[in-house]
Amino acid sequence: MAFRVYLSGEIHTDWRKQIIDGCKAANLDIQFSSAVTNHAASDAAGDCLSEESNGFWRDHKSAKVNAIRTKTLIEKSDVAIIRFGEQYKQWNAAFDAGYCAALGKPYITLHDEALIHPLKEVDGSAQAWATKPEQVVEVLTYLLSDQLN
Amino acid sequence: MAFRVYLSGEIHTDWRKQIIDGCKAANLDIQFSSAVTNHAASDAAGDCLSEESNGFWRDHKSAKVNAIRTKTLIEKSDVAIIRFGEQYKQWNAAFDAGYCAALGKPYITLHDEALIHPLKEVDGSAQAWATKPEQVVEVLTYLLSDQLN
Amino acid sequence: MAFRVYLSGEIHTDWRKQIIDGCKAANLDIQFSSAVTNHAASDAAGDCLSEESNGFWRDHKSAKVNAIRTKTLIEKSDVAIIRFGEQYKQWNAAFDAGYCAALGKPYITLHDEALIHPLKEVDGSAQAWATKPEQVVEVLTYLLSDQLN
Amino acid sequence: MAFRVYLSGEIHTDWRKQIIDGCKAANLDIQFSSAVTNHAASDAAGDCLSEESNGFWRDHKSAKVNAIRTKTLIEKSDVAIIRFGEQYKQWNAAFDAGYCAALGKPYITLHDEALIHPLKEVDGSAQAWATKPEQVVEVLTYLLSDQLN
Amino acid sequence: MAFRVYLSGEIHTDWRKQIIDGCKAANLDIQFSSAVTNHAASDAAGDCLSEESNGFWRDHKSAKVNAIRTKTLIEKSDVAIIRFGEQYKQWNAAFDAGYCAALGKPYITLHDEALIHPLKEVDGSAQAWATKPEQVVEVLTYLLSDQLN
Amino acid sequence: MAFRVYLSGEIHTDWRKQIIDGCKAANLDIQFSSAVTNHAASDAAGDCLSEESNGFWRDHKSAKVNAIRTKTLIEKSDVAIIRFGEQYKQWNAAFDAGYCAALGKPYITLHDEALIHPLKEVDGSAQAWATKPEQVVEVLTYLLSDQLN
Amino acid sequence: MAFRVYLSGEIHTDWRKQIIDGCKAANLDIQFSSAVTNHAASDAAGDCLSEESNGFWRDHKSAKVNAIRTKTLIEKSDVAIIRFGEQYKQWNAAFDAGYCAALGKPYITLHDEALIHPLKEVDGSAQAWATKPEQVVEVLTYLLSDQLN
Amino acid sequence: MAFRVYLSGEIHTDWRKQIIDGCKAANLDIQFSSAVTNHAASDAAGDCLSEESNGFWRDHKSAKVNAIRTKTLIEKSDVAIIRFGEQYKQWNAAFDAGYCAALGKPYITLHDEALIHPLKEVDGSAQAWATKPEQVVEVLTYLLSDQLN
Repeated sequence: MAFRVYLSGEIHTDWRKQIIDGCKAANLDIQFSSAVTNHAASDAAGDCLSEESNGFWRDHKSAKVNAIRTKTLIEKSDVAIIRFGEQYKQWNAAFDAGYCAALGKPYITLHDEALIHPLKEVDGSAQAWATKPEQVVEVLTYLLSDQLN
Repeated sequence: MAFRVYLSGEIHTDWRKQIIDGCKAANLDIQFSSAVTNHAASDAAGDCLSEESNGFWRDHKSAKVNAIRTKTLIEKSDVAIIRFGEQYKQWNAAFDAGYCAALGKPYITLHDEALIHPLKEVDGSAQAWATKPEQVVEVLTYLLSDQLN
Repeated sequence: MAFRVYLSGEIHTDWRKQIIDGCKAANLDIQFSSAVTNHAASDAAGDCLSEESNGFWRDHKSAKVNAIRTKTLIEKSDVAIIRFGEQYKQWNAAFDAGYCAALGKPYITLHDEALIHPLKEVDGSAQAWATKPEQVVEVLTYLLSDQLN
Repeated sequence: MAFRVYLSGEIHTDWRKQIIDGCKAANLDIQFSSAVTNHAASDAAGDCLSEESNGFWRDHKSAKVNAIRTKTLIEKSDVAIIRFGEQYKQWNAAFDAGYCAALGKPYITLHDEALIHPLKEVDGSAQAWATKPEQVVEVLTYLLSDQLN
Repeated sequence: MAFRVYLSGEIHTDWRKQIIDGCKAANLDIQFSSAVTNHAASDAAGDCLSEESNGFWRDHKSAKVNAIRTKTLIEKSDVAIIRFGEQYKQWNAAFDAGYCAALGKPYITLHDEALIHPLKEVDGSAQAWATKPEQVVEVLTYLLSDQLN
Repeated sequence: MAFRVYLSGEIHTDWRKQIIDGCKAANLDIQFSSAVTNHAASDAAGDCLSEESNGFWRDHKSAKVNAIRTKTLIEKSDVAIIRFGEQYKQWNAAFDAGYCAALGKPYITLHDEALIHPLKEVDGSAQAWATKPEQVVEVLTYLLSDQLN
Repeated sequence: MAFRVYLSGEIHTDWRKQIIDGCKAANLDIQFSSAVTNHAASDAAGDCLSEESNGFWRDHKSAKVNAIRTKTLIEKSDVAIIRFGEQYKQWNAAFDAGYCAALGKPYITLHDEALIHPLKEVDGSAQAWATKPEQVVEVLTYLLSDQLN
Repeated sequence: MAFRVYLSGEIHTDWRKQIIDGCKAANLDIQFSSAVTNHAASDAAGDCLSEESNGFWRDHKSAKVNAIRTKTLIEKSDVAIIRFGEQYKQWNAAFDAGYCAALGKPYITLHDEALIHPLKEVDGSAQAWATKPEQVVEVLTYLLSDQLN
């Protein structure tokens, strides 16, 4: 059975593609999953259900539709990679980390040194901290090495 | 048995005190808990264990010591109030929200309108969103009203 | 420790009072709990958080505030009594029954013979079906009898 | 692996077929499941076990046989769609919603505006509310879009 | 907090009394619990709910009422003592043992050598096997010895 | 995915074969499992590990080896059929029933009318009671009927 | 409610006493627990049940009796302190650490620098590593500081 | 579906190979898994993430990376074989045993008679104790025999 890796966080750089391409190049049997990463589509996830004049409820509806997907995929994953970039609040990434922690689901954080202090609680429950996508590929390559049978 | 309320998030304003004072004034039987809110003490939580030259590991040690307290108190609470202020990254607050969500522990967020969009996933799993401490007091007063026996 | 009984469902007749009075008369050490049974207050549970022009969201907010209380009390109870009356949809009572069933929390239904067929799934997961409050009192009296020590 | 969708509730209109047909047309990899929707067969589910003169016990036996199927399928599903129509008590649908809520299993309700108030507790724990089957198809299409790998 | 011991099985000899008296004599802080041990009352536990002409359903109703008590007490206990005597089928005692095993709740069996072979699965998941009540008292005395603080 | 049925209990009549043959004739997609039903092999399950002069420990070792298989298969099954025959103590069957009950795993009992009273606790937590293997086949045929997709 | 600390491991030095005395001196509201630390009594825990000629089974019986106590106390504790000394195999201490890890129960290890490498998996799942009892006292003092209410 | 066996412990003898070869010769449908057994690679598991001057943190990082793999594989296995050899502390093997015990995951220990006493707690929660790999093969052969269908 393929190893299942959930990719959470930043959608403005190509870190997902770097990890996926790196793992393909390493020929790893991994099934990647993620939230819907199209920002506009994600914000509009609930729009088909009814029109909303109030911004809070529009966001609320979309967030709850998106949670159907993210919750299911996180629970089915074997490990999550949680990326924090330089911009935006990215509270959803920290939320996913807390969700993983409570489930006992291992996760690896991916962020620059500059974010060490504000991420200390998130890193404190992580199994590893990487600064570059290629390190994540290297860890995954290691984790899937030396299989029996 | 007292209702147990965990207060998570911002430590730079007196929102905790406002809620606690408001609940005392309303004579509610509530036991409040929280992470250690002394910032310097919290950052130094692991310092007694050994000296650390590397900032990451100093933070790591303290974060893990603090997690002994926060994890236990969140799990024992009946509801968490999670506060997001204007400053700082506050990823630990979003982490606590995700932790609650995965446990099925109800939580109420407390933040300004300006933060609605970046907090949509955090609010999407919350039971309520308040903008002022007195609203939290009002909700808690309601929740503890009309007791049988 | 007192036995904890959650009383769910109909708020338009005095069945709660009959059970509580009957158990007091029988001198049983029971702690009763319930949702807030003041209908207007319950519908307005979320009103303090913000004004809502849209009826769905007003109901939504109040329902989620109420769930903080009901979820907690159901989970802490030893048994739930779930009452279906003649009027209204009472879907919240059936919802509570399903909630109990999934948790493995025992519950007793309380309803007339006329409702047997539409309640067959709800009764199918119940530990007992009573038609009158005094039968519930009799069952509880039996359950708390013959204590050791 | 196919996404698994459980369809609960009303058996007197063709909403199941509309959703299934819509998802097939959209080429979604979904495995649908449901209770036995043949009303007479469902009511007679326990008749082969013994004859019953008492209506309560006939219903009871059938309900418990049916629960073997519904409980298993709900637990294996990724999301449930729970439909409330205009007729009948439909307490089994609300029961399924409560069952999902306690398991942390996401569900989407499908009902008209007229039912908003009596369904507020059921909707309060739902991830989304739709009024038409095509909206459900649209949400499912979105949820299965933008897959990695 | 008192140690909680559930006493399951045979109701035709005074083994419960021997254990309770022995523990009192040893001054142990134990809270004992049990199913209702009055045989006639236990068989009639559901009779107040309605009259039943069919023996299966009379037993069924009573068994389900009794389960409200036994399930709750087993789950709250720290250890169960499960007694098998010489007479009767005593399937309820074996059922309680399986229930404990699945919950990870430790239990001690109490039976003669003659029953070793037919009880091998029940003993296989037990933490200990005793043949006499005084051995159970001795084990409990040991378990509560040497307390810190 | 095939429906998984665990067959527990009596090994001296051919009830397993009757159910399996009946389900094959009905073309049902079911995967059956069971404890090792060769009595001598089952009693000797632990003999390869070391010789044992003491009967209790020989039984103990074998019971614990067998439990590796039965525990795993029960947990993976969708429903268990638990058979009680006329002979022997059959405490292992009642143990399996209790194990299922605590896991929330549905089970169907299969036994004659003569055993109703001593099996009342076991039947009380069952989803159905059958007296003949062909009834079990009929129930399984019903449960697997009317599949969507 | 007092904070509950389980003290696991080495019984040949007075580290338990040092921690308990230190916490008393600091006036902390902690309830300590432990396995029975009288070595001879612990080895003989099952002797009252029957005589055993075979060393494996004597140890086995005592280990299982002791597990009734240790399992219960670990599960009820808020944090475990797990001590590794210089002598003996101390596999029971590592076993307790793994038990805590799987339960998500936080634990602190207490051992010298010399043991870092062989304990890396045990430390890897710990919340903290201390080398001296007074550090554990300091951490506990911190964890119980700054209480609200 | 193949039976899944996790092989934990000693990496300095060829016991894994003996068991795998024996099971292949017996034509058993088993999927074996294990930690990475290359000692140097395992110690260096976290080295790609950053350089570490401090031995504790180097070990810590590697241990946490390795735990992503071991935790996942243990949780997915049906049974674990846990081997203790003559050399080294082998606390990771005892840790895995405790982890299995807390999860209710069955495990078999594999060690010489000389280790009986120090391993009594580890053996006390095991389903079986073997002294030679061929005994493990024999037990697995038995467990996979006599399959239905």
